[in-house]
Amino acid sequence: NISWAINGTACEVLNMDTMNPNVKRVEYAVRGPIVQRAVQIEKELKEGVEKPFTEVIKANIGDAHAMGQKPITFLRQVVALCAYPDLLEDDKFPEDAKNRARRILQACGGGSIGAYSVSPGIEIVRQDVAKYIEKRDGGIPSNSDNIYLSTGASDAIVTMLKLLTSGEGKNRTGVMISIPQYPLYSAALAELAAVQISYYLDEDKCWSLDIGELRRAVKAAREHCNPRALCIINPGNPTGQVQSRQCIEDVIRFAAEERLFLMADEVYQDNVYAEGCQFHSFKKVLFEMGPEYSSVVELASFHSTSKCFMGECGFRGGYMEVVNMDPEVKLQLTKLVSVRLCPPIPGQALLDIVVNPPQPDEPSYATFIKERTANLDILAEKAKMTEQVLNTVPGIHCNPVQGAMYTFPRLSLPEKAINAAKEKGQAPDMFYCMKLLEETGICLVPGSGFGQRDGTYHFRMTILPATEKLKVVLEKIREFHKRFTEEFS
Amino acid sequence: NISWAINGTACEVLNMDTMNPNVKRVEYAVRGPIVQRAVQIEKELKEGVEKPFTEVIKANIGDAHAMGQKPITFLRQVVALCAYPDLLEDDKFPEDAKNRARRILQACGGGSIGAYSVSPGIEIVRQDVAKYIEKRDGGIPSNSDNIYLSTGASDAIVTMLKLLTSGEGKNRTGVMISIPQYPLYSAALAELAAVQISYYLDEDKCWSLDIGELRRAVKAAREHCNPRALCIINPGNPTGQVQSRQCIEDVIRFAAEERLFLMADEVYQDNVYAEGCQFHSFKKVLFEMGPEYSSVVELASFHSTSKCFMGECGFRGGYMEVVNMDPEVKLQLTKLVSVRLCPPIPGQALLDIVVNPPQPDEPSYATFIKERTANLDILAEKAKMTEQVLNTVPGIHCNPVQGAMYTFPRLSLPEKAINAAKEKGQAPDMFYCMKLLEETGICLVPGSGFGQRDGTYHFRMTILPATEKLKVVLEKIREFHKRFTEEFS
Repeated sequence: NISWAINGTACEVLNMDTMNPNVKRVEYAVRGPIVQRAVQIEKELKEGVEKPFTEVIKANIGDAHAMGQKPITFLRQVVALCAYPDLLEDDKFPEDAKNRARRILQACGGGSIGAYSVSPGIEIVRQDVAKYIEKRDGGIPSNSDNIYLSTGASDAIVTMLKLLTSGEGKNRTGVMISIPQYPLYSAALAELAAVQISYYLDEDKCWSLDIGELRRAVKAAREHCNPRALCIINPGNPTGQVQSRQCIEDVIRFAAEERLFLMADEVYQDNVYAEGCQFHSFKKVLFEMGPEYSSVVELASFHSTSKCFMGECGFRGGYMEVVNMDPEVKLQLTKLVSVRLCPPIPGQALLDIVVNPPQPDEPSYATFIKERTANLDILAEKAKMTEQVLNTVPGIHCNPVQGAMYTFPRLSLPEKAINAAKEKGQAPDMFYCMKLLEETGICLVPGSGFGQRDGTYHFRMTILPATEKLKVVLEKIREFHKRFTEEFS
Repeated sequence: NISWAINGTACEVLNMDTMNPNVKRVEYAVRGPIVQRAVQIEKELKEGVEKPFTEVIKANIGDAHAMGQKPITFLRQVVALCAYPDLLEDDKFPEDAKNRARRILQACGGGSIGAYSVSPGIEIVRQDVAKYIEKRDGGIPSNSDNIYLSTGASDAIVTMLKLLTSGEGKNRTGVMISIPQYPLYSAALAELAAVQISYYLDEDKCWSLDIGELRRAVKAAREHCNPRALCIINPGNPTGQVQSRQCIEDVIRFAAEERLFLMADEVYQDNVYAEGCQFHSFKKVLFEMGPEYSSVVELASFHSTSKCFMGECGFRGGYMEVVNMDPEVKLQLTKLVSVRLCPPIPGQALLDIVVNPPQPDEPSYATFIKERTANLDILAEKAKMTEQVLNTVPGIHCNPVQGAMYTFPRLSLPEKAINAAKEKGQAPDMFYCMKLLEETGICLVPGSGFGQRDGTYHFRMTILPATEKLKVVLEKIREFHKRFTEEFS
C-alpha cells in the first residue's frame, strides 16, 4: 500500500532531512543569494517594475563575454570548421584555421567532434599543451602523459581533491586553502567532507602569502586532521595579487618540508597587469630549484580556456598537468576520469588553439595578436582605473589589481550598519551588497562568501564591464558608499 | 628538512595507500583493461608489428560517429553559426538554421556561447526541452523549472545519486540497480560509498524486469542498508530490451509502496527497433496512473545528445527532468550544480536543436528527416542482423536487440577455458574477450564488467560498426567462438 503518501502525511523520499548532509554544507557565493536576487530584479525590470536604475550589472562573476568582450576570431573559426567541416571548402576561412581544424578532426574518432575522445583528452591536444608548457617554462620538459584535459579547471581541481581525500577523524585529509579563497575549494571540501585548513593572505602587504602563516595554520591543523595538500591561486582570485618568484620558492620548500601535495590554480597566468609583476609557474620554479625538490614535490597545475585573453567560459575547456605523481595513482586517475567518458570536444578543440595559436608566418597571425593584445591591454587599463577610483572613496581601501580579473577592497562599515545586518541575520558585507544591488543594480559578491579575517568586510568585483560602464559602476559605488556611511552614522 | 624524500625512502604524499579508498573501488569496464590493450595494439599496428588483422574494431562503446555515422547536417550548421556568428551573413546556410542560432545567441550572455549560462542551463533551451517532453508524452505538462541541463547524462545521474546518499551503517543509502547494468552506476555508488542493491534482469524472458525479483532484492537489502532509490535503464544498456507499459506501471507501483526515488535512464528513447515494442516514458506512465501516484512518486528522468539518431557524444549534452522533487531540495540541487558553473554551451545549443528540430514548413525539414530516418533505419537493420547471425553460432545465445545499441549474448564456455581463465586470475569472459582481441582485433567488453548471474558469461557488443564491417565482425566472432570452443574442449 502507499498509505504513507496518501493519508495526508506525505513525505518525500528525498527531503532536507534525508539528503546528503555534505551537499547541504556546500556554499558557493559567486552564484549565491545575491545573484539569485539579481536575476529576479532583471525579471522585474522586464515586467516594468520601476527601479532607480535601468539594468542590472553583473560584476559578480569572471564572465568576460557576458560583459562584452569579443571572442578571438581565430579560435571561433577553428571551432566552426570542426563543427561543420563543409566549411573547409569555403574560401572565406584562412588556411591556418583550416589546417588546425583538419588536424583536430583527424585526431577525432570518425573525423568528428561528436565522437568521444580517450578520457584524458585527445592525444594531439595533450601534446600541444605539453609543448606550450615547455615553451612557457623556458624549455623545462613536459610530457603529454602528464596532461589531463578537463571540463573547465573546476573539474580537474575537484578530481584532484577527490583523489587526495581519505581517512577518518584525526586522520581525515586536510587541505590548506587561502583566505580569501575562490569558493570552489571550500565547496568541494565540504562535499568530500575533507577538512578545510585556512591560511590568511596578508592584506596589508598586498595580499601576499607569508610562510609563517602557513606554518601556523598547518601546525594547528595537525592537532585534528592530516594535512596533505596546499592550494594556491596565482594570480589570485578574489584578491588579484601576483606572487613573487621568491614567495613561490618558499611555498615549495614549505610543501616539501611538510609533505604536502601542491595544487597550483594558474588559470589567470596571462592576466598580469602591474609593472614589475610577472607570472612564474610553480612547475618552472620547482624545476629551477634543482632535483632535491623537482624529483620529489608532487604538483598539479590547472589552466582553463575561461580566463586570460580568451574568456571562453562557456566551452568548459581546461587541463591539468601532474608532476611527480605516483604511476599507480595516475592509472587510478585515468580510471576515475573515464567514468565520465571525456571532456567536451569543442572545449578540447578550443584549448588546442589557445596553446597552438597562429605563428608569425601564418595568415591569421596579425589579427590574432591584435585581438589578444587589445583584450589584455583593456583589462590592464581597467585594473588600474578600478584601484585608483576605489581608493578615492573614504572608507574603501583597495590593493593594486596586479593580476587576474577582480578587486577585493576592504570596506569600513559603521557600527550601526553592522548591527542592522545582524538584526537581519546577514553578514555585514552581504547587507551592504544587497543594498547596493537594490539601489543601483550593481551585483557584487560579499567578502564573506570568500572568507576574510574576522571583523573585516570586503566585496569582490570583476573589472570586466566595458571601460565606460566600469567608470559608471565605480562612480555609483562611490556615491552609494557615501550614502550608506551617512545613513548608518 | 626534507630528509623524508632524499634519504632513499622517498614516498609520495599521494600513493595507493593514502589515496581515496572509494576511488580505488571504482570500476569502469567500458574503458577498462581490455580497451587499454586495444589502444596498445593500435599503436603496435602503426609501428608495423605483424598481427592476424589490420585494424582494431572498437565495438566496446556506444560511439556512433567513431564508427562512421555521419553528423546530422542541421545540428552542425546551427552549432557552427553559434560558434562563428559571421556566418549568419552567409547565403549557404538555410534560414531555419540561422533563426535557431540567432535565438540561442540572444539567450547567451553578451550574445556569445563563450559566456557562462545560469547553472541549470539556458532558460530557452530548458523551455524547449519542456515542450519536447510535453509533446512526447501526449500533452502531460512539463515545466522548465524542473529541467536541469547537464554535461552528458552521466553528470546528472551522478548528481542525483550524490543528493540521495546519506547515513551510516544500516542507515546508509542503498540504490537498486539492474544486473547487468551500465557501470556508471556501480562506479558512482562506489565513489559515494553508497550501497549497491542488485536486482537481476530475466535473461530467459528477454531481459525483462520481474517485480518479484525487485521485492526479493529490496527485502534482503533492508537488513543492512536503507534502500532509497531505484534505477532503471530503458531501453536497456547493455541488454537492449524495451520495457512494456505494464512493466513500467508495476515498477512505479513498487517504488511507491517501497518509498523509492525513481531514476529513469532513458537516453535510448528513440532507439527502438523491434516490432511491437514502443518507448514509454516513466513520466507519462506515472501521470496516466492518476494523482494517487503522480502526485507523490519522485522521479528523475535522464536524456542525452549522445545516442538516438544524433550520436553526438563529444558535445556532452544532456538534461534531466525532476518530478515531485521537494522544493527545498531543488534549491540544494541548483546550488550544487552552480559550483561547476554550467554545462558546456555548445552541448546546450546542440540539445536545443535535438528538442526543437526543423518543422515541415521549414527549408531544412526534408534533409533533416531523411538523415534522421536513415540513421535509425540502419541501426534497426543492424540490430536484427546481429541477433540473427549470433544465434547461428553454437554456444552463443542472443536475445533480440529490441532497442538501444548493444547486444549482450550469453556464451557457453568449456570448463577448460574457465579453468585457464582462473589460472590467469581473469574472469572467464575477460579471458575470452582478451583472446578475441588478440586474434581478431575486435574489442568487446566482457559481461563481468556489467554484472551477470554467477556461472553465466557474456560480452557486450555495440551494433554500431557500418553494416558491411559489422557482417565481418560477426563472422569473425563466429569463427573465433568455434576455434575457442575446440581449443578448450
